[in-house]
Amino acid sequence: MSSSFGALFRVTTFGESHGVGVGCVVDGCPPRLPLSESDLQAQLDRRRPGQSDLTTPRDEADCATILSGVQNGVTLGTPIAVLVRNRDQRPGDYAEMAKAPRPSHADFTYQAKYGIRAASGGGRASARETIGRVAAGAIADKFLRLRFGVDIVAWVGAVGQREAPMPENIVSRAEVDRFATRAPDAASDAVFRAEIEAARAERDSVGGVVVGVCRGAPPGWGEPVFGKLEAELARAMLSIPAVKGFEIGSGFAGARWRGSAHNDAFVWKDGRLGTATNRSGGIQGGISDGETIVFRVAFKPPATIGQPQKTADFEGREITLEARGRHDPCVVPRAVPIVEAMAALVLADAALQQLARESAAR
Amino acid sequence: MSSSFGALFRVTTFGESHGVGVGCVVDGCPPRLPLSESDLQAQLDRRRPGQSDLTTPRDEADCATILSGVQNGVTLGTPIAVLVRNRDQRPGDYAEMAKAPRPSHADFTYQAKYGIRAASGGGRASARETIGRVAAGAIADKFLRLRFGVDIVAWVGAVGQREAPMPENIVSRAEVDRFATRAPDAASDAVFRAEIEAARAERDSVGGVVVGVCRGAPPGWGEPVFGKLEAELARAMLSIPAVKGFEIGSGFAGARWRGSAHNDAFVWKDGRLGTATNRSGGIQGGISDGETIVFRVAFKPPATIGQPQKTADFEGREITLEARGRHDPCVVPRAVPIVEAMAALVLADAALQQLARESAAR
Amino acid sequence: MSSSFGALFRVTTFGESHGVGVGCVVDGCPPRLPLSESDLQAQLDRRRPGQSDLTTPRDEADCATILSGVQNGVTLGTPIAVLVRNRDQRPGDYAEMAKAPRPSHADFTYQAKYGIRAASGGGRASARETIGRVAAGAIADKFLRLRFGVDIVAWVGAVGQREAPMPENIVSRAEVDRFATRAPDAASDAVFRAEIEAARAERDSVGGVVVGVCRGAPPGWGEPVFGKLEAELARAMLSIPAVKGFEIGSGFAGARWRGSAHNDAFVWKDGRLGTATNRSGGIQGGISDGETIVFRVAFKPPATIGQPQKTADFEGREITLEARGRHDPCVVPRAVPIVEAMAALVLADAALQQLARESAAR
Amino acid sequence: MSSSFGALFRVTTFGESHGVGVGCVVDGCPPRLPLSESDLQAQLDRRRPGQSDLTTPRDEADCATILSGVQNGVTLGTPIAVLVRNRDQRPGDYAEMAKAPRPSHADFTYQAKYGIRAASGGGRASARETIGRVAAGAIADKFLRLRFGVDIVAWVGAVGQREAPMPENIVSRAEVDRFATRAPDAASDAVFRAEIEAARAERDSVGGVVVGVCRGAPPGWGEPVFGKLEAELARAMLSIPAVKGFEIGSGFAGARWRGSAHNDAFVWKDGRLGTATNRSGGIQGGISDGETIVFRVAFKPPATIGQPQKTADFEGREITLEARGRHDPCVVPRAVPIVEAMAALVLADAALQQLARESAAR
Repeated sequence: MSSSFGALFRVTTFGESHGVGVGCVVDGCPPRLPLSESDLQAQLDRRRPGQSDLTTPRDEADCATILSGVQNGVTLGTPIAVLVRNRDQRPGDYAEMAKAPRPSHADFTYQAKYGIRAASGGGRASARETIGRVAAGAIADKFLRLRFGVDIVAWVGAVGQREAPMPENIVSRAEVDRFATRAPDAASDAVFRAEIEAARAERDSVGGVVVGVCRGAPPGWGEPVFGKLEAELARAMLSIPAVKGFEIGSGFAGARWRGSAHNDAFVWKDGRLGTATNRSGGIQGGISDGETIVFRVAFKPPATIGQPQKTADFEGREITLEARGRHDPCVVPRAVPIVEAMAALVLADAALQQLARESAAR
Repeated sequence: MSSSFGALFRVTTFGESHGVGVGCVVDGCPPRLPLSESDLQAQLDRRRPGQSDLTTPRDEADCATILSGVQNGVTLGTPIAVLVRNRDQRPGDYAEMAKAPRPSHADFTYQAKYGIRAASGGGRASARETIGRVAAGAIADKFLRLRFGVDIVAWVGAVGQREAPMPENIVSRAEVDRFATRAPDAASDAVFRAEIEAARAERDSVGGVVVGVCRGAPPGWGEPVFGKLEAELARAMLSIPAVKGFEIGSGFAGARWRGSAHNDAFVWKDGRLGTATNRSGGIQGGISDGETIVFRVAFKPPATIGQPQKTADFEGREITLEARGRHDPCVVPRAVPIVEAMAALVLADAALQQLARESAAR
Repeated sequence: MSSSFGALFRVTTFGESHGVGVGCVVDGCPPRLPLSESDLQAQLDRRRPGQSDLTTPRDEADCATILSGVQNGVTLGTPIAVLVRNRDQRPGDYAEMAKAPRPSHADFTYQAKYGIRAASGGGRASARETIGRVAAGAIADKFLRLRFGVDIVAWVGAVGQREAPMPENIVSRAEVDRFATRAPDAASDAVFRAEIEAARAERDSVGGVVVGVCRGAPPGWGEPVFGKLEAELARAMLSIPAVKGFEIGSGFAGARWRGSAHNDAFVWKDGRLGTATNRSGGIQGGISDGETIVFRVAFKPPATIGQPQKTADFEGREITLEARGRHDPCVVPRAVPIVEAMAALVLADAALQQLARESAAR
Repeated sequence: MSSSFGALFRVTTFGESHGVGVGCVVDGCPPRLPLSESDLQAQLDRRRPGQSDLTTPRDEADCATILSGVQNGVTLGTPIAVLVRNRDQRPGDYAEMAKAPRPSHADFTYQAKYGIRAASGGGRASARETIGRVAAGAIADKFLRLRFGVDIVAWVGAVGQREAPMPENIVSRAEVDRFATRAPDAASDAVFRAEIEAARAERDSVGGVVVGVCRGAPPGWGEPVFGKLEAELARAMLSIPAVKGFEIGSGFAGARWRGSAHNDAFVWKDGRLGTATNRSGGIQGGISDGETIVFRVAFKPPATIGQPQKTADFEGREITLEARGRHDPCVVPRAVPIVEAMAALVLADAALQQLARESAAR
């Protein structure tokens, strides 16, 4: 279970990497929202393999078809099903998988859990599963933008040992897309590119960090106590394959501070009560405070590498494994639209819940 | 909404800091589990204020009464309701709250969300809300221990700028309780104590990190794709007041590594397939792999400090705020049983879901 | 599991008939709703045993205490926990239960399901569990009345073989309470009373039907396709102990009609589009249409009777069972506030979901 | 929302009657279950229009494609997505719908709820939505049959004024399919056919009753208190378009009985404790008792009839409406596999929940 996410704006994803296709059903999208396949495609194109010289050469157009819930370019309020057919499959690349679980992949645990696993590719653990999320996130994104003016942007904040400085004026998706690395500035792009190319040259992989911001969310979103906005964001981000950490606002650095320095004093600004600093990351007590929501997501280096690896097969015999599939040396550039999608899904759900409450208490 | 957590082992907490009391209802606990109030009290005592010279002097016995679901020392399989009455209330301490929202507290956001907030104390945003979680977690903990031999232990891994080394042999709760700081070793205890006492002396507060480990979980727990075990842990931990970050396994550090160094090779050990290293933190593809689950949780410094703070009132007028309530200079020692409780709730839920699947596929 | 009901206006009940007490937690009640214990007590008093000469002599004041979520007579938007302590317990009355499962009671199935059951009384299967529902329903009821002017009334439509005619002008709760039988008119009261007294005289019991109406619900409530308003009402009513059937609008009689006679033609009335007839029972396609919602609920005769019954014990040995507990010869008069409570919980939940959608699509 | 059903065996349906297609996603089906498209097609063929001379001439092959979750004829434990493309669409038949809401259809309420509705056909309110249910139900059905030997059969128990006697030996699906009316015996088939043909001759429609039985469910399925097995069945059945009533066991007739006659005495039979009679309908206290589960479902006459109807348009102007679409004069024969599907979904979910509990309490 748990291929579903969200209470009121709810997405269910389906599909294996090497089956008929992948997709999603979005239930709870408000009616009368202008929506077309091109809204989905824009973000799918930012996620798809083969989009730049830094990604896997596995080439998939990842073309989305809306099966239901939209008519004459407008949502009906009914479930929106989206299908993206798989195309460039090379099951042969995965022949070795049958014998041994790939290190730091999900082969072993899927086998342990289900007593069976997809015969090729990563099945549901493949990054292809995120296609359904990106499609659903694009719908949530459009709702948030049109109804509330909420703007969600993510970029690559670190690759391997190298970090990009936090941009002074937070960038737009178009600015992020100037660079194949999705760095926030040209200097960072250069060092990130070097880091990725070095890893690839060594038939290795490298991790990184994606930074996400959400601007324009009004105060009041997020459901205490277990549905805190940062809790839902954390869950959303840790559900993305390869993610190992999440921080909101000051994050782990905040744990090193004194309270007197960390506290966000209130000030009057832009005609409303705001905070002078934003260590809280736009959320206090689990509820948005009207400041920019800022978070960071850590991605491990991709587990599939070109180098031979000593490991063991299912019976525990030592073997040397060599991958033949096509893979990204670094996933964070392509992870950017996935992080945006998950953030949009979290915020759309929180928004709907708060709308119900506000309207009920009127 | 969202005072509930879990799908099959489900807890709902209730209660404000300054009302009749706080508590929880646990629905889904298996029947015939030996359980008494003393099981709950043991962990509540580790959470309660006034337990050492390092915590708030607010003194609450936090005595738990089981209202339902248990008979003759055994669970019935029906909802277990637990009530802890509030006692040592000093609403007067919070008079200033009416005028101005406390910086980095939830006063402002609760007011924005609900158009009303508890007149004194933090209401649901108070750390007292976690009493219900600790009581529920103690039940989950007992189930996991008796049915699976799972052992969950947390300790303080950092206070402010100071970090404790990862203990070679992972400690027990009894060992953790040797020190009021809940450090894993005597040397760390000394530096943590110094850090906390320094903050208190300056009428300030300081943050920290709690490390948690779960030993004995079999391979197969966790629900792909949105219910990944690390995603549920992340959500659980970020739902604890004052938490700003979560890491599983290698965490943010892992983002800096190369894949060749990061991957966990498989090896045969203890009669089953395991991994030589554990950067994955006991979870691969969202599913437990049989290794120890290891995670870290960042807590910000408590927002309430004795120093006067410049801030603004609800109308935006600059004011200087001085807290009069009684508070911890550092929350992490008392956060240890809360982290354990949330981990237990996540694992118990994952365990029940996997039991259903395993039994169904037989 | 499943001691919870509702998605956005969510109640969880707890408590056994012969334990410390019974109660509920309501999560999702809008903030700033005027609410006091007397709102709950009014409906609890209509449900409590011993209220008239026709009910069980088991005497319980069923006094409700609000533990959380309300302050200064107004809801906070946080969980509202309610506790009603048990008082008049006579465990000895149930000594025979240990040996043999009572016919048409839940003793056998609880034992089969949980491998254990409450040692006395019906445990969770007791009608006392409905106290939590009535308390929660009173909160939902107040929300619906104050926010939407929705008015929910139920009455006894049949006792045994005798049916009351459908009242021309639908009655109020005060009118229903004129008669201990909760018949809608004096003539029906007389025949219902005779039927109940005859059953009691023979140490027997008798079934009946409760009719419920909800006036004032606007068009648009109910969630297609599985959350149809009549589906949620059906589930709510069948979850009440002893209920064996549910009808909406024309119900089973409607199955005998021709479409040309059954269809509800649209007409303009009261300044809006309505229907000339109401076979639909106020719901079309799972969504309220603005007409009065009308439904009927069938209750079987209480299983506990004073006559000796031939049955078998847990080992299958033939025995003769004689009940010694105190019981109602007919439950429908006391079931009236329970039916109203469940209807209110269904409508409050549907209302909140529709408010979210309407507000989102704006 | 609420296009999803079930907690552990969870189906989400999607699709409008006149869009690309309809289908479902089943999440939670156990892994390693033998499954192919022919399993689904068998029940879809029993539901499809045009299967006999008594149904609508709208001809749809309703061919199911499995998009995910199955590999080499076995389930993977991951979401199973199924798509059935729409083919025989005649949007022109529905031109009148734009002007006026059809009586006793969902046109008015969908418009009221969503502020928009599908331009042709019934959208989500169409009976085509049930295709997703039947596909999902066929999966649940196979799980129940292979894992537990549970056998679910439904038939037509009444058409209009005519009722079939309860068959002595409960029939199989093959026996039910001997007659286009899906009557349980030849005599009933004749009277049902006459009733349907009479309605059709008068360009009218007629209602009916479907009877369902589930044999082989062990004691212990069903979740007190709100998830009682009869409550979930009631909700499932009332969620089917055109259903107006539900009865379990003795149902409304039971409300007329005395307890002494109604109670099901326990007896030893077939090596276990059972009941001599079965007024309870196989469920006591919300939990299956091991007897055959028996229920009845009332369907109103189809709202679409060939006769002209006086009604009003959206602006309240009186008009005469004449339907031009192709429709069934009586839906109950084709409703039989839908009722079976919903019963299977309810039981599969209850089974998984009970497996979790049983296994946990071991």
